[in-house]
Amino acid sequence: MKILQPAASQPQARTHVVPQGTVAIIDKQAVAYNLDSLRHRLDQAGRRNGPRLWAVVKADAYGHTLAHVLGGLARADGLAVLELEEAHLCRAMGWRKPILIMHARYTAADLSDPGLAPLHVIVDSEDQLRELETLAQRPGPHAWLRYSGCLNHSGFPARTYRAAYARLHKLLQAGRLSGLGLLQHYARAEEAEHMREERRDFEAVFAGLPGPRCTENSAALLSDPDYAGSGDWVRSGIALYGISPLAGVDGRGLGLLPAMTLSAPIHGVQPLAAGAPLGYGATFQAARDLRVGLVHCGYADGYPRNLVAAGTVLVQGRACRIIGRISMDTITIDLSDIPQAGPGTQAVLWGHEALSIESVALSAGTIPAQLCVGVTGRVPRIAAAA
Amino acid sequence: MKILQPAASQPQARTHVVPQGTVAIIDKQAVAYNLDSLRHRLDQAGRRNGPRLWAVVKADAYGHTLAHVLGGLARADGLAVLELEEAHLCRAMGWRKPILIMHARYTAADLSDPGLAPLHVIVDSEDQLRELETLAQRPGPHAWLRYSGCLNHSGFPARTYRAAYARLHKLLQAGRLSGLGLLQHYARAEEAEHMREERRDFEAVFAGLPGPRCTENSAALLSDPDYAGSGDWVRSGIALYGISPLAGVDGRGLGLLPAMTLSAPIHGVQPLAAGAPLGYGATFQAARDLRVGLVHCGYADGYPRNLVAAGTVLVQGRACRIIGRISMDTITIDLSDIPQAGPGTQAVLWGHEALSIESVALSAGTIPAQLCVGVTGRVPRIAAAA
Repeated sequence: MKILQPAASQPQARTHVVPQGTVAIIDKQAVAYNLDSLRHRLDQAGRRNGPRLWAVVKADAYGHTLAHVLGGLARADGLAVLELEEAHLCRAMGWRKPILIMHARYTAADLSDPGLAPLHVIVDSEDQLRELETLAQRPGPHAWLRYSGCLNHSGFPARTYRAAYARLHKLLQAGRLSGLGLLQHYARAEEAEHMREERRDFEAVFAGLPGPRCTENSAALLSDPDYAGSGDWVRSGIALYGISPLAGVDGRGLGLLPAMTLSAPIHGVQPLAAGAPLGYGATFQAARDLRVGLVHCGYADGYPRNLVAAGTVLVQGRACRIIGRISMDTITIDLSDIPQAGPGTQAVLWGHEALSIESVALSAGTIPAQLCVGVTGRVPRIAAAA
Repeated sequence: MKILQPAASQPQARTHVVPQGTVAIIDKQAVAYNLDSLRHRLDQAGRRNGPRLWAVVKADAYGHTLAHVLGGLARADGLAVLELEEAHLCRAMGWRKPILIMHARYTAADLSDPGLAPLHVIVDSEDQLRELETLAQRPGPHAWLRYSGCLNHSGFPARTYRAAYARLHKLLQAGRLSGLGLLQHYARAEEAEHMREERRDFEAVFAGLPGPRCTENSAALLSDPDYAGSGDWVRSGIALYGISPLAGVDGRGLGLLPAMTLSAPIHGVQPLAAGAPLGYGATFQAARDLRVGLVHCGYADGYPRNLVAAGTVLVQGRACRIIGRISMDTITIDLSDIPQAGPGTQAVLWGHEALSIESVALSAGTIPAQLCVGVTGRVPRIAAAA
């Protein structure tokens, strides 16, 4: 898989003034940097007027909180959300460019709210087709007809796609839609060969149908920008937050900056004698005398409970291994080699150049998206100082 | 391990009017029932004046939201929280009985707020001892001296416990504390033999020291009520929410009622032809023609992403298997045998007598506490109708 290097040299990791407490620092400047970096890749693909970019901000901007990242997304062409309520929220926060509603349980009345325009919606069922056909207001939204493809989560399969298109095209010609496009979500965007198959499959389905295309996501943009640059709109979510959508490489390796830094204070230090147990279930026993740090974060904050591989946190820039079971409120770490760290020292849990969220996800046997959306309401999100 | 049956017959599972949407219904009456059930067990242990009960409501009542469960906790003797801020919240919501702050990063000034009284605090470090020694206000809080025991998360070890006790006892005699108790958190409360060892260990440490004891938690109460009934205060968290703290038995098996029912609507139905893939990574292939239901809940709602065993959801009272990978926003299920279910049908994800949170946790290779505290802010908690 070909991965373009960013044109600029490795981005400078930004350092944040970290307040005391269990906290996620959200850096909108990192988001802006990542957006520009994606654009630069699309330009490299050789088109002066490259595709427009939907910034995906569903799930409260992948757990980063929309309010904190919005300022970093000013140069996006539109925001993509899941629900109607999120679209209203984006408008309330002052977003004036297009919004794409992707989940799209809507009625004609929902779509007629002039406060939502310019509005784009995905059409993925007969019910939605019928709702659009009852729309009184002109022009209605820009419709995107979803192909069910290999993902099969929703959308029209090959056998009914063109008939659905014909019905929407009639609405478009009658001035009842403001646009009509062709849209697909890949099932296997991380695997180049499979993704190309999915592309070819969809191209055969829509061959000859006019209208803009929107098929590429973060994984496609980063693994295959030559192609991705030829769409009309692309969608990017995870990469905007500085997180790699590709296995085996982290955001930094792709020239991205992490938008979230999760950290928590050490709230206590406990000497642990050789042979003594630690934590619930007494799963850990000290092989020698240890100095244990109690980090004020646990699975009730969204830190993963089950580590399938060795986990670490960063203390004063150094990796400390996690020892003992992670509890609801506490992570226990081996502080033996950092005698100067103690109560009040802040530990970084992810989002640092030396400890990426991708590496924590790997230790936890999951994907980084699950970690960032899973940070619970108990953890305040605080905007990074400019 | 001896498990007492509740005196009453199996509790009647409560049925809720479930609103459309991805939602967690919180039933304070179930919480009240569970509290009474625990009391009943303690009374069975033969004491007229059984131990008092701390209802543990940290992590926003284990993800249930404090505001929704507080009404069900009226008969608890006190609320146990982690942080000072949570104690203020309990007072703001009108709680007038004792509050125990368990995490206890406090200054003398924090503890002097008369609005927090009657206040109990855990003492688990030299720093905290010193703060209490500077307290000007009389009487100060009720202190509980934590033994670090086998858990070793915080507290005083055997070699310093009695010296710390002596310092606190001096404050008590001078009228500067309103009480002084002995407290322990077990590392292995689920394993009776180990728990008994931990008890004996602590008893040897505090032998001869006067003061109330607080050592037993939900697991201890349910596995060994004869002993648990002999303490002065007990702490219960998970069991109050109707969830079993013991392996191999769910809340219902212990005579408890689930306080949270998580459900989500089916938002679409997708035919899947034999041989066709489903979901991200195309990890599932249909062996025969299937009718797939798309449930509007995913890992961004806190549903576990990695199932290590077969997962199911309940549709119209029937178990439907989860097929394909769980995505950020969608769970895909096999609806082939329930033709009458379709868009708008609500699926129960856990908290039903036929689908306990314990069984979902087992499928996900985790513990139920991680699931209930991990339900994200995207999921509204709604009070069950009375």
